[in-house]
Amino acid sequence: MRRFVSYRARNLISTTTTSSLLAAFRFLSTLQPSSSDSMGSDYSSTPVTRDTLNPKVLNCEYAVRGEIVTLAQKLQEEIKENPGSHPFDEILYCNIGNPQSLAQQPITFFREVLALCDHPAILDKSETQGLFSADAIERAFQILDQIPGRATGAYSHSQGIKGLRDTIASGIEARDGYPVDPNDLFLTDGASPAVHMMMQLLIRSENDGILCPIPQYPLYSASIALHGGTLVPYYLDEQTGWGLEISELEQQLKTAKSKGIDVRALVVINPGNPTGQVLGEANQREIVEFCKREGLVLLADEVYQENVYVPDKKFHSFKKVSRSMGYGEKDISLVSFQSVSKGFYGECGKRGGYMEVTGFSPEVREQIYKVASVNLCSNISGQILASLIMSPPKVGDESYVSFSAEKEGILSSLARRAKTLEDALNSLEGVTCNRAEGAMYLFPRINLPDKAIKAAEAAKTAPDAFYAKRLLNATGIVVVPGSGFRQVPGTWHFRCTILPQEEKIPAIVSRLTEFHEKFMNEFRG
Amino acid sequence: MRRFVSYRARNLISTTTTSSLLAAFRFLSTLQPSSSDSMGSDYSSTPVTRDTLNPKVLNCEYAVRGEIVTLAQKLQEEIKENPGSHPFDEILYCNIGNPQSLAQQPITFFREVLALCDHPAILDKSETQGLFSADAIERAFQILDQIPGRATGAYSHSQGIKGLRDTIASGIEARDGYPVDPNDLFLTDGASPAVHMMMQLLIRSENDGILCPIPQYPLYSASIALHGGTLVPYYLDEQTGWGLEISELEQQLKTAKSKGIDVRALVVINPGNPTGQVLGEANQREIVEFCKREGLVLLADEVYQENVYVPDKKFHSFKKVSRSMGYGEKDISLVSFQSVSKGFYGECGKRGGYMEVTGFSPEVREQIYKVASVNLCSNISGQILASLIMSPPKVGDESYVSFSAEKEGILSSLARRAKTLEDALNSLEGVTCNRAEGAMYLFPRINLPDKAIKAAEAAKTAPDAFYAKRLLNATGIVVVPGSGFRQVPGTWHFRCTILPQEEKIPAIVSRLTEFHEKFMNEFRG
Repeated sequence: MRRFVSYRARNLISTTTTSSLLAAFRFLSTLQPSSSDSMGSDYSSTPVTRDTLNPKVLNCEYAVRGEIVTLAQKLQEEIKENPGSHPFDEILYCNIGNPQSLAQQPITFFREVLALCDHPAILDKSETQGLFSADAIERAFQILDQIPGRATGAYSHSQGIKGLRDTIASGIEARDGYPVDPNDLFLTDGASPAVHMMMQLLIRSENDGILCPIPQYPLYSASIALHGGTLVPYYLDEQTGWGLEISELEQQLKTAKSKGIDVRALVVINPGNPTGQVLGEANQREIVEFCKREGLVLLADEVYQENVYVPDKKFHSFKKVSRSMGYGEKDISLVSFQSVSKGFYGECGKRGGYMEVTGFSPEVREQIYKVASVNLCSNISGQILASLIMSPPKVGDESYVSFSAEKEGILSSLARRAKTLEDALNSLEGVTCNRAEGAMYLFPRINLPDKAIKAAEAAKTAPDAFYAKRLLNATGIVVVPGSGFRQVPGTWHFRCTILPQEEKIPAIVSRLTEFHEKFMNEFRG
Repeated sequence: MRRFVSYRARNLISTTTTSSLLAAFRFLSTLQPSSSDSMGSDYSSTPVTRDTLNPKVLNCEYAVRGEIVTLAQKLQEEIKENPGSHPFDEILYCNIGNPQSLAQQPITFFREVLALCDHPAILDKSETQGLFSADAIERAFQILDQIPGRATGAYSHSQGIKGLRDTIASGIEARDGYPVDPNDLFLTDGASPAVHMMMQLLIRSENDGILCPIPQYPLYSASIALHGGTLVPYYLDEQTGWGLEISELEQQLKTAKSKGIDVRALVVINPGNPTGQVLGEANQREIVEFCKREGLVLLADEVYQENVYVPDKKFHSFKKVSRSMGYGEKDISLVSFQSVSKGFYGECGKRGGYMEVTGFSPEVREQIYKVASVNLCSNISGQILASLIMSPPKVGDESYVSFSAEKEGILSSLARRAKTLEDALNSLEGVTCNRAEGAMYLFPRINLPDKAIKAAEAAKTAPDAFYAKRLLNATGIVVVPGSGFRQVPGTWHFRCTILPQEEKIPAIVSRLTEFHEKFMNEFRG
């Protein structure tokens, strides 16, 4: 019946304009039960059900945007619609490394160059001199000259614009002191697609394993699940500041092999996410030796390379470490991931990044290139930004002083925030927290009373998720339960970013402290 | 030995600066055989070989950036280094729908808004009034107000910024005359990742099939191969202007079912790529009925919706067609793909796009959302641009006249270029070419002489690839062999874009005509 009416409606109003058509449709819709209503509220006549989806998708989990965040969004709506409905007046998102969502300002020089590349028509106008710094204008000209036809709106080479790769290569050379081939660089929409690309290449079946740290950034478990492989866990040692022990790698590799798993790669996140440790160079050399000895690809997540907050630690890339050991291109297979989303710039929304791929034969490289080609190229603004973060203003450039001030301001503030939050967490009953030497997170351990664990069981939720949900409902603070990152069984944690604005940190500390005391009083037993 | 020297080198120079370290490394490298040399030129000590890669990756092909393009890039280098080394002085890339790489200029209004959103600090400056149109400034303010915290550098909601989705929803409503739920929209880095996402959800194993047109855009065959499914071909009828016959769909579905294939979805590309046909509304209703009857998801590639060049054809979205038939949200599962890369704007490098997902249950939608979340979000510039293409300047806006002139200039020129190239192709011996009613391509059929086919066989290449390579070597014109898109066995085609600058079309026609005559003379027998 509905179909008949609608058919007629279409014929009746076929000569009207679009907007009156829409109005007519809406009017007719009021005259009859909608198709949805007549079908009932179910989707029984649609072909796809949850049970007929790819089971690899069903198996995949990504806690950073999981249940707690959905609840937070709901609470945010409720506060907006009904102020005073909760014991807090804003949601404090400490769940995700997304600095600019928490009012961190973009680096001026980077945005100047991006804007000029987006609209090169203004480069020659006199007003532009008054609006943009001279070195930003010069840099925009340089970048445009590197783009064939100055076409910032064209698909680029599948690996990214060659001139930008040259710039990035020089930046890595300046960082590491070893040569870089621009043809080893694949520019990507952030680091995540690069990680997926490597997983897609390496994983053939559930018999292929990838060694991943536990706790891990859940992109890895999600990507391995989506590609149908097996995550082979190795545990970081919380007692030694989330130390990475070679004996643990060896033990887990042996166990995996005994189960028939072909372990293909080792993921190392340095600085660590969610754990915040910065690896020492000697430790890195052991890791390189381990990969070499065991024939593993080393997948080095180095997206937090500019986020180091303690004077006794320094970031060393695995490329530099392996080259310093004398291992050349053909001795070790190493992929280093970098992103514009992290560092002091935190340009998450730009989706820029790259991977440096070394130690793969030309035949294998050809396959990596092919997979990159299927998606044509990464976004050009992200490509440009990736070149900028690897070649920021230098001494003498007009922007250098203001750029350095912005950079220092952000990094020193992050260091202070990390320390304040770490101290606050360590002052809580039953909570221990390693320092955030780098990255953007603290990952405190909470020793929950038995009664809390039982209450969580009754609520059919993990004890740390139970704690995180309670925290959110009481304070508006959003953290991610440790179970989303995996952890030593029987231990409970949460991940909390160090990113809220510095002036909000005292309030977070006091709200968290008050909540925790009440929680412990309630469940101490 | 090398390792020992390098270890020493590192210790010797550990206190020097980075650049002198690099210089020292390079100096030391001259003193000894490099690690690569000492290992020989092979990669035998690296763990990954072609044979141990994921076979799904090996099976995947993507001709648009395949062998012919690699050859073209080589020739381009040769011309640059050694002018006069080939019988042409430039490479004419007719292989890919990449308008701005062929000097098409971006739409001014779009770029103004993007630049202002990249660097909002200039919005309030007086010079900005002189550089940007008033409505671009106003639009940038509107967009920034839609972004939480005005943070264009933050990860957005996994589906894209809600305010931008609202704008796109209104644009689709204005186009179709039916309501759109912004929560049905998933903003993506171009249409390709959206297609991958749907394939990833639907394909469980090689027993899952996806009905695809032949000829097809090779993203589909590549994505199905990468996800391990089966491409179920249906042939478009070249005789009737690449007509899509329901009897053919039924026949191929039956054949696939008899082989135990569970066919899950039907891909329709409208306007067609590489075939350029625009579907009639009656035909589209039949297709909708077929999907409804057979329980198939309709995957509608509608990225060329603004590229229609003939007065007797009009684009109708499958959403509009199915709604006009009375099918509501719960009656038919339909995904419509749109991209900022095509249309008259051709902003390929921005990687923006969206999919409108209708007719899936909440449990299935939750899984789509989860997959989108794993990659966090698409790039914000691309999201903004997707909103702009769906809500361009309106009558009365300051930019409206110039915007309309830019749009009309591009579309009318494309129509002229399509017609000129079509006529030229049809005048060639043994070549027949359907008109490009829409999209950006011609797909002529070449009836190759037996002798040419034998010569191709001797060269171990497909006959149309043989022809395309000869064409490239003789004229610098790059086309994609029909075999890259699949075709009726025993027929040969190539895909040629209509995108070269209009003033270059006569030269292309004469070069192509001259080449073709010589080719036929050589191989006529």
